[in-house]
Amino acid sequence: MAASANSPAKKRILTGIRPTGALHLGHYVGALHNWIDLQDQYDCYFLIADYQALGDHFHEIDLIRDSVLQVTLDWLAVGLDPEKSSFVVQSYVPEFAELSMLLSFITPLGMLERNPTLKGELDDLAVEQRTVGFYNYPMSQVADILLPQAHLVPVGDDQLPHIEMTREVARKFNRMFKPVFPEADSLIGRVPRLSGTDGQGKMSKSKGNVIMLSDDEKTVTKKVRGMFTDPNRVRADTPGKVEGNPVFQYHDAFNPNTEQVDEFKARYRAGTVGDVEVKMALAEALNNFLDPIREKRAYYEANMNLVEEAIMDGVGRMRKVAAETMEQVRDAMRISSYTKNWK
Amino acid sequence: MAASANSPAKKRILTGIRPTGALHLGHYVGALHNWIDLQDQYDCYFLIADYQALGDHFHEIDLIRDSVLQVTLDWLAVGLDPEKSSFVVQSYVPEFAELSMLLSFITPLGMLERNPTLKGELDDLAVEQRTVGFYNYPMSQVADILLPQAHLVPVGDDQLPHIEMTREVARKFNRMFKPVFPEADSLIGRVPRLSGTDGQGKMSKSKGNVIMLSDDEKTVTKKVRGMFTDPNRVRADTPGKVEGNPVFQYHDAFNPNTEQVDEFKARYRAGTVGDVEVKMALAEALNNFLDPIREKRAYYEANMNLVEEAIMDGVGRMRKVAAETMEQVRDAMRISSYTKNWK
Repeated sequence: MAASANSPAKKRILTGIRPTGALHLGHYVGALHNWIDLQDQYDCYFLIADYQALGDHFHEIDLIRDSVLQVTLDWLAVGLDPEKSSFVVQSYVPEFAELSMLLSFITPLGMLERNPTLKGELDDLAVEQRTVGFYNYPMSQVADILLPQAHLVPVGDDQLPHIEMTREVARKFNRMFKPVFPEADSLIGRVPRLSGTDGQGKMSKSKGNVIMLSDDEKTVTKKVRGMFTDPNRVRADTPGKVEGNPVFQYHDAFNPNTEQVDEFKARYRAGTVGDVEVKMALAEALNNFLDPIREKRAYYEANMNLVEEAIMDGVGRMRKVAAETMEQVRDAMRISSYTKNWK
Repeated sequence: MAASANSPAKKRILTGIRPTGALHLGHYVGALHNWIDLQDQYDCYFLIADYQALGDHFHEIDLIRDSVLQVTLDWLAVGLDPEKSSFVVQSYVPEFAELSMLLSFITPLGMLERNPTLKGELDDLAVEQRTVGFYNYPMSQVADILLPQAHLVPVGDDQLPHIEMTREVARKFNRMFKPVFPEADSLIGRVPRLSGTDGQGKMSKSKGNVIMLSDDEKTVTKKVRGMFTDPNRVRADTPGKVEGNPVFQYHDAFNPNTEQVDEFKARYRAGTVGDVEVKMALAEALNNFLDPIREKRAYYEANMNLVEEAIMDGVGRMRKVAAETMEQVRDAMRISSYTKNWK
């Protein structure tokens, strides 16, 4: 790892989310759960990447606006702590755009063209959504990670090409100019597999197959009742499959009573328990899990000044780090100081 | 033309140059000559686009650094007036990068893919020079023009696709959000044709076929002596061709004694004048033209604080305009003000 010009006491983490809706249990299991644990050990920067969301949502700015608030509330509600970590809204920190542009000058176009994640995503977009901004988002992500000089980036498998690109760009910059950037390592947490409530792998609010962190008790119970189970099991006394069954995935992830879960699994396989009983136990477990989150969310909704403070504090810390990094970058590249020796 | 949210008293002009070397007579004829005339009528922003120069010159930062100074000196020497116009160094104004990123989210990738100028230039570059930053430079140029909300852009023919793209992006933004940007018109001046001293169309310092604004008298005379003329004319009494003959192109552009030029042309066609006589008259005309420019350049070289002041004044004016534009842009898009109504 290249030496960072400023070596903070704690290693830095950068991770984040595009604000395109409030968060659901999939976000909790896949990310938030890990982030909460990381807060004590690391100096964490949690990014709300609204600029990147614009890339394929520029027609839905109302959604983005609302989501910035919803995501912040969700973060606070699950226990991300703005005193320990920095909540950052991307568009409040213009240095992200500036560093992204600067780094783009040393980044071969081939790196974008070869990025398999970007390729797949572009193919999925309607033509009018294929914007220059979307095409550049991996470049923008590189800047997201390098601006705070992050050492670690908690990511999913599909994000590994982006981390690799970030490391390549950092190495190239350090070699060409001066060692400014650490080469960020990816941090892949144990992520229990969690499907949508319809059994589909891809979870999204628009598909209606997710349980939101902000759903109330009734909504959760109703969603669990409608959950996809084993499609081959037509009656309660038919032996059923536990593997790949979303009801049991959710039990594994959220029901702390593992004895109960094991017993349900055995009885389900044997055909001695009905779907309804298993589901009602899951609804109860989920509501128990969500109750303190709902309570905290309500508290922050009633104290919006604290929500604003969380953002402004985080942005303030990020801008300080950003100014330091940009100073180092300009110094290393020897640009933007032309007039210094002119007198 | 869409109404601009702030309507300055004078129409605004944005034009500029990539700092990749000091300027030569080609720059004077093709651009500077017009710019000098435009200063009184318009509010001019003359941009030294160092970020854009990085796109294909990131290995030559020393060249860019030095060129920022050389270009500023050349501008001052030919009579661009920092009290009338704003000299702007791109990297001193981070809003260029920010606006470029924001506009990229509403710009279809197809606009870049279809841009014939970009296509040609990419093909000419070595693979390692084909950077993400270079690919994005038309997007960056759009921001260069829209950040000062320019009404007019003096350009050459080859730049017309960029102006068209700028107008398209402005129209789309104005339609989607609010009318913030005027649709810039191109301003194509009468540009006398001027070849390199070797008769080649493409002039560049690296080809050694240009006369620099900063060349001294001896150098100019030597370069004129070596100029390409009519290759089929082997002796002074052979009738020669005036058309496409660089010596006569330069006479037309820089010799104010049109009678002498007409006489030379007639005698040249008749085979009654030697190349040497025509060239020596040209060298004299060029040195007469360059003398006051050299004098002014020497003055500013001895008073570098004035050079720095020219840049810092221009950058200061540009940053003020930039802040106004970004405020209007954010207001129109309703981003970056999420926390405003949270309390």
